[in-house]
Parts: sequence; C-alpha cells; structure tokens
Amino acid sequence: MRAVVMHAPGDVRVENVENPTIVEPTDAIIRITDTCICGSDLWPYRGIEKVRRPSKMGHEYVGVVEEIGDQVAKIAVGDLVVGSFVASDNTCEICQAGFQSRCVHQVMMGGIGTQSEYARIPLADGTLVPVPGEPTAAQRRSLLAASDVLGTGWFAAVAAEVGPGKTVAVVGDGAVGLLAVLAAHRLGAERIIAMSRHADRQALARRFGATDIVTERGEEGVARVKGLTGGYGAHSTIEAVGTQESMMQAIRATRPGGHVGYVGVSHGVELDGQDLFFATVSLLGGPAPVRRFLPELIDLIMTDQIDPGVVFDLTLPLEQAAEGYRAMDERRATKVALTL
Amino acid sequence: MRAVVMHAPGDVRVENVENPTIVEPTDAIIRITDTCICGSDLWPYRGIEKVRRPSKMGHEYVGVVEEIGDQVAKIAVGDLVVGSFVASDNTCEICQAGFQSRCVHQVMMGGIGTQSEYARIPLADGTLVPVPGEPTAAQRRSLLAASDVLGTGWFAAVAAEVGPGKTVAVVGDGAVGLLAVLAAHRLGAERIIAMSRHADRQALARRFGATDIVTERGEEGVARVKGLTGGYGAHSTIEAVGTQESMMQAIRATRPGGHVGYVGVSHGVELDGQDLFFATVSLLGGPAPVRRFLPELIDLIMTDQIDPGVVFDLTLPLEQAAEGYRAMDERRATKVALTL
Repeated sequence: MRAVVMHAPGDVRVENVENPTIVEPTDAIIRITDTCICGSDLWPYRGIEKVRRPSKMGHEYVGVVEEIGDQVAKIAVGDLVVGSFVASDNTCEICQAGFQSRCVHQVMMGGIGTQSEYARIPLADGTLVPVPGEPTAAQRRSLLAASDVLGTGWFAAVAAEVGPGKTVAVVGDGAVGLLAVLAAHRLGAERIIAMSRHADRQALARRFGATDIVTERGEEGVARVKGLTGGYGAHSTIEAVGTQESMMQAIRATRPGGHVGYVGVSHGVELDGQDLFFATVSLLGGPAPVRRFLPELIDLIMTDQIDPGVVFDLTLPLEQAAEGYRAMDERRATKVALTL
Repeated sequence: MRAVVMHAPGDVRVENVENPTIVEPTDAIIRITDTCICGSDLWPYRGIEKVRRPSKMGHEYVGVVEEIGDQVAKIAVGDLVVGSFVASDNTCEICQAGFQSRCVHQVMMGGIGTQSEYARIPLADGTLVPVPGEPTAAQRRSLLAASDVLGTGWFAAVAAEVGPGKTVAVVGDGAVGLLAVLAAHRLGAERIIAMSRHADRQALARRFGATDIVTERGEEGVARVKGLTGGYGAHSTIEAVGTQESMMQAIRATRPGGHVGYVGVSHGVELDGQDLFFATVSLLGGPAPVRRFLPELIDLIMTDQIDPGVVFDLTLPLEQAAEGYRAMDERRATKVALTL
C-alpha cells in the first residue's frame, strides 16, 4: 500500500510499504478514507523532535472496516468508523473515568501511522466508534477533525471547566485552538477571547464563537485579557501551543481559582513551583482522551450542529502529502486533509 | 506589647514592640489568646528563606476583639474570633469564588505578625469569623488549628477532589499532612494512605483516619501506592511538603485523570512540562483559602465532631517561643502552640 514516511526533518515521501495485517485478535484493519497532517507532525518535520529512523506518519483517521480479529464484537466489516490518536480498551478504570488517552493498554496510533491506505487499529472495540448513516463530504471532513483536533480542543475546554457565565481565553490559533473556541461556544461560555495575530484565523475564531480578539502576546497579552475581565483574568484558559511562553501566558491570564486546560504537546517547558503555587489556578492537560467525546461529537456533526471541518483549508490527495507538510510548515495552511 | 521577632536564622526573641493601632477604618485590633508556630516559619529559621530585617513572626491566631474601625459592621468588641493567615475582603469576585487567599485586597498576616499580645487585622469583616459560645480548652486549641493547618489540609483535600469511594495518598506527615488525613476522612474517602516514617505521626494519622501507612519515599513510595491501588495510583493525592521530591512523589503516585492538591509552600520546585503533560493529572494548590472553610470548621469543632487540636504536641507560653522554634526545628515537636 501507499503510505507517508518521514525520513528526516523536511523529508517526507509517499512510498510503497507492506499492508497491515491482524496481529492481535482485538485488532481491526481499516481502509482509510480520510486522514490529515497534525501540528504535532511538524515537531519532527522541523527537527525539534529527532527522526531516528524512517517513520510512518499520521494518527488521525476516518475509514471503513475491512477485517476484524476474532475477539472484535462491537465493530463489523463495512462500518464507517472514527477513532482517536490513542487506541484504548475503554474498559479499564482509567478509561472508565474518561481518560482513554492514558488507558493501561494504550497504543499510540502515531507509532502505527494512518497517513496511508490502510491501518491496523488495536483494541478495535474500545477504540473505534461507528458513524450512523452516510456522511456528506462536509460531514466527513468534520468527522476527520473529530479524530484529534476537535476532540483535543473539546477536552481542553472541558479541562478548563468552560461553562455558562464564564470568560474563556484561548492561547494558540492553530486548528486545536480554533476548535477549542468552537467547543467553548458549544459549552456555553459567555465570552471567548481568542489570542491570534492572523486575520484569517481571527475570522475563523469569530465564526466559531470568539467574542474578542487579542493580538498581543506574553505579558502584554496577559494585560489585555485582564483588562477585558475587570482585572481578574479569565475563568478558563485553554493552552494549545506547548511552549514556555504559551504556558506562562495561559497561567498568568487566568484568575486565581480559575482553570487552565493545556493540550499543546509540551516542548521545553519548565514550570517554576513558586510561580505555580502563587498563581493558585487548576491545571489539567495532556494527551486528550478524545474517545470520551467521540460519540457526542459524531452526533453533533451528523446532525449538522457543528462544522469543525472548516479548519481544513487545504485538501490534497495522499500522494501529495509532501506539499501538505510544506504548506503547514510555511503557515500557508492551518490544517491539511489528505484524501484517498 | 510582647512579640516574637526573628533577627536572623536561628535567632528568635520575644521583645517589647509598639502596640498595634487602627490604621484603616476596616481594621480591628484583637487581643491574641492563642497562636502558634508554623512549619513555614522554619524556612527563614533554617536560613532557606532570607531574613532581611528583624521581623515579627506568626500568622495563626485566635483572639478577642478589642477595638474596631468605623467601617467594621459584622464583628463586635468582645467577640472571640478566628481568622486565616490571609486577610481578605470576602466580597471580591475571587473571594466569592472561594479563593480568599488571593483576594484582590489580600494582606498576608505573616507581614503583620500574630505571635504577639495584640494584632491588627485588616478587612476585619471579611477576615474574622466569630466563634459561637464558650470553647473548652480542647476546642480552643482546635480553633487555633483551624486558622491555618486544618484549613490548609482541608483545602488540599478539596483541591485533590477527595470524596466517597476514592483512595487518597498524603505526602507529608507534618501538621498539615496529618490534618489533610482528617479532612479526607471527613470528606468520605474510602482509603487513606499516609506516607510517613515517624511512629508518633503514623499513630496520629491512623487516629485521624488513615487506613494504610507507607514508609517509603520517592519512586519506592510511588511503587507502594501503585501496589495498593491495583497499579493505577491514587485518585487523589495531597502534597504537604513543598520540595521537588515531594511534588514529584505526589504527581507520580496519582493515576491519570486523578487530582493533586498541593499546599506545601514551594521551595526550589521545577516541574518539567513534558512530565506533567504525560502525567495527565489535575493540579491545584497554593496558599489555602482557609476563610472559605472556617464557618464549617468552627461548627465541626464546637460540636466536637473533629479534634484537630491534638496536632499540637507542645504548648508553651509566648515568652518561651524560642524554645518552641527549636523544638520544631529539631523535630522534637510537630506543632507548637503559644499561649498568652
């Protein structure tokens, strides 16, 4: 089959690789119909994470079940399915508590790769959620967003305890930050402050429900958020970047007793204990348990209540994946879908 | 009046200082009846925090109102009162949300000093809570505990989302850690693992409701907690020390999706962003908003439902404060009360 392989920073190729096969009786093989490039794929592409060997890429996917292992009971061949970037049994205590991204049997899909024609999905019964009915093209694109960026933004909003009457600040205007705005809006936030410098992303943030745009960063950005909130800071802040600057911006923009939901994969962040102590805010973050939210998100998408798929501003065939990486790296695209 | 003054690390004296007077119309002057030495007073005593000038010490207190400013309405001369270590207006948005320790008008009582015959209490209406009836000697000692260590332990348990059915780990066996055990028990925890190496403190932890004792620290301690919780880790962990080791022990002993409540004043702690990201636990800590809990704690004490005052294992007259500091520094005492 054809698959995207990263050989070195900046060197992404579409190659022939072996088709996946059932390894465990709980596996399924799916034929990928839609996949995409993640902001986190740019860390190795830019050399910030090491590329030790040629690696199959991708962890977001919508597909059709082609084959199932002997112990798969809830998923049938022919189902159109969505799963998250972490395969999970959905039965252990951690999964049952809603943290499927830290399932005791977790398998990171990034280690398998889904920017390809087919993929093996471990723990298929726990991981995959069937889509009811036949999605439109727009719905299919939104289902792909649900696989990671929407689910991650949604988790960030839930982790930040977004709710009615609250003011929410969102640090980061990538796909996750933008969809966190959408999530905050759906979860009833009264005011949503999107922190963004880019006109196109500001426009999308407003479309998703942002009420205010702050273009300043760092301490200036914090001062602007405080200025918009009577000097107190936001009740809920979402961090969707993963750098020292963005984490501190998020923590400092939050009022004492407020909540920070952080989902930007942390790179080079060191938090000073005393700063954190005197900030007196709640912090919750990490790899998002997207599986927790998938049934609800699929329902919202298939009933046209949300349209997160509009974050995809470039769609290319899988064969042109290298151009997709370049477009995201050069910020010509926010989020690139790859079709098969 | 007589007051405890720290001149340098290890050099604590009881001296004559000027009596406090009303400065703001929202102030009250109280005659201190009970005060005590805090674990945090040991940071400067041990030279870990600088002592830049001779400083009045103390921030815990029970007392009788002697005088009130013109704008004090809820507190009357003659009231027996308890307050927390942070004076707060109890009306700003932060106070109303239950984070009085970060009131926009906060005054740290440690900067005023309560190891003395009298003390000025700023924002008296917001800060002080009258005690109904006439406490017994044991109740009075418990009210003094409510002023900081009980309230702080209680906040830690609430911040760690302790509740029925949960397993709680407590890192730190000082007065705050021990009273966090009491709080966890009152809040309905199913299992309480106290991490302690000292037989006398282990005994007190068991008296307060600990079901298990773990003597190991660091990674070994974490492994023991995991062993007691089916490999998952505690649902709720309370950190009551403030060092790098204790913070990491608390975070690692907590299951993904669990909660860490940290109240040990942070000294030299640096949290690695990636460790924190992949721990996927909620963190909430800081100076405890004791004021939030005082009415409830006073009620529990005055109806003899809790007896937190037993953490005071040495009581001395104020004049012997220096011996009290020595006893705590040398770990001959867990918590020293000073009477007037």
